[in-house]
Amino acid sequence: MASATSGAAPPPAAPLDAADGALCEALLGSDETARRRALAKAITLLESTRADHRARADALLGALLPHAGRSLRLGVSGSPGVGKSTFIEALGLYLVGRGHRVAVLAVDPSSSVGGGSILGDKTRMVRLAAHPHAFIRPSPSAGNLGGVAEKTREAMLACEAAGHDIVVVETVGVGQSETAVAGMTDLFLLLQLPNAGDELQAIKKGVMELADLIVVNKADLDAAAATRAAAQIAGALRVLHWQAQPPGAWQPQVLQASALEASGLDALWEAVSRFRTLREASGALQARRRAQDEAWMWALVEAGLRQRLRAHPAVRAALPEIGAQVRAGTLAASVAARRLLELSK
Amino acid sequence: MASATSGAAPPPAAPLDAADGALCEALLGSDETARRRALAKAITLLESTRADHRARADALLGALLPHAGRSLRLGVSGSPGVGKSTFIEALGLYLVGRGHRVAVLAVDPSSSVGGGSILGDKTRMVRLAAHPHAFIRPSPSAGNLGGVAEKTREAMLACEAAGHDIVVVETVGVGQSETAVAGMTDLFLLLQLPNAGDELQAIKKGVMELADLIVVNKADLDAAAATRAAAQIAGALRVLHWQAQPPGAWQPQVLQASALEASGLDALWEAVSRFRTLREASGALQARRRAQDEAWMWALVEAGLRQRLRAHPAVRAALPEIGAQVRAGTLAASVAARRLLELSK
Repeated sequence: MASATSGAAPPPAAPLDAADGALCEALLGSDETARRRALAKAITLLESTRADHRARADALLGALLPHAGRSLRLGVSGSPGVGKSTFIEALGLYLVGRGHRVAVLAVDPSSSVGGGSILGDKTRMVRLAAHPHAFIRPSPSAGNLGGVAEKTREAMLACEAAGHDIVVVETVGVGQSETAVAGMTDLFLLLQLPNAGDELQAIKKGVMELADLIVVNKADLDAAAATRAAAQIAGALRVLHWQAQPPGAWQPQVLQASALEASGLDALWEAVSRFRTLREASGALQARRRAQDEAWMWALVEAGLRQRLRAHPAVRAALPEIGAQVRAGTLAASVAARRLLELSK
Repeated sequence: MASATSGAAPPPAAPLDAADGALCEALLGSDETARRRALAKAITLLESTRADHRARADALLGALLPHAGRSLRLGVSGSPGVGKSTFIEALGLYLVGRGHRVAVLAVDPSSSVGGGSILGDKTRMVRLAAHPHAFIRPSPSAGNLGGVAEKTREAMLACEAAGHDIVVVETVGVGQSETAVAGMTDLFLLLQLPNAGDELQAIKKGVMELADLIVVNKADLDAAAATRAAAQIAGALRVLHWQAQPPGAWQPQVLQASALEASGLDALWEAVSRFRTLREASGALQARRRAQDEAWMWALVEAGLRQRLRAHPAVRAALPEIGAQVRAGTLAASVAARRLLELSK
């Protein structure tokens, strides 16, 4: 009874301390330089794994949340070699040139502090990084995908609160990063090369079906090949989306572009805008975000429960033997699961 | 310490009681009639939700497991109207005619006791059902997909122990049943209609990429259309599987058949046999089964942990409010997850 009563209301978030209050104010304020610095500091706090930082980060998130959510969240994926950085920089420059404020984040479970992608992004996107209305943040390194994706999601909220109206989340294509990025963005864009069938393409299973837009990049290299690849992909999409669509639903589209020559960006942004208008009018955009938020919450809860189970002394002691028996085929998986649950009580 | 020590070895399964021992003996024995009856009774026990039955079922599974695993497990999916029952019956008759012993199971989360699919399967597969070397079992009704799929997996083990060397698991295409079936079979076969683009096709996202074989059924209706559909699908598969494949890996294939005229079955079975030979030789077949078993175990553990969390008094009291705040966008999903985990301690 006591625990049921004490649990009736969720515990309130801790209040912001004075320093974090000032940070929050600067992040939401109108001084460009202070805002930029505050955003970087806020993301560093969100990324911290220290327990006291985590409590402060949760309080900060609570204060920023009412100001978040007003951007278009754009996921960008594609194999190495497809020209992702060049594409994102070209698109980013195109957008800041039209008055948008662009943030670029990444989900990269393979990155490590001081590692490749951190220097990489800023080095490769020099021109965009230098623009006062662009904010580029490399992927945090938290050791596992769940952790990295969680931090990128939180960083996205901070970028939105700081007034960035376009957030680009880049995936490096490692592990389940495409699914993670598609699960936190409004529109998932897949880059492809004109040379269809090339080993470089390396699309993972299920990724093409996540795409709302597919862009054949480097179309300048071989226009005929790019047109052929676009037609092949469009044909595949027709087969994949044979399923009945609700009337007025978005049909995934294939476009061509050359990030190097900054061509095709008008048509691309027109398609993105059509997507956004259609999805906002039907309520599908908000519905997708709500579903993403709930799925994210449960995914984190489950990760926590799994971690707790694995740390339970009785489970830790028995798991190697139970796992070996399941792998050897001498213990049915369902019976093994019931034993683990029993042991963890 | 005490709990770590007591947990060092998994608790042994309860021994079979006399009646279940006799059941097990009959199921493994050579008397055809007794074996068939014992298999039906064993599956009924496995499907029971009574706690005392569950303990007996676990003991029975333990006794049957050393005799299971020797079949080819064939998943069959396709939209309603694609002619799945006719196809499975034609294939089943073809196989028993060649000396195989065939079992047909289903994963149907929408079925209920006395409901459509139970009568349906047996009514539609009259000729196969009457064959002494065929065993058809309708989908159990356990209310949720996890439950149904778990029971179908266990029934599959019992069928194998009873000497069925081909187990066909049918999915009705409701909910996540395709993924569940692909996750418990060696080869996943997707049926398609010759009229590409027809609304009846209704392939769900991701299902085509699960397929090891795609069969354009009802090819007798319109040979030209069937050939066109097969070519379209083959093109889509090439795009989907652009990713680099390990050398010697199976490439998903498209075939044509007419279950009504029992044509195309030779070519189909030849493809299935090639798949099996290739996968057994490379070890991929066994590796897939081991991965399925481990994934199954963890899926059941997670379902149990989730159930336990939701039943926790403090979580039950706070969840409606926390969920509402996440959906309203006033509480970050990650903060909500940390609160739920804290409350469930």
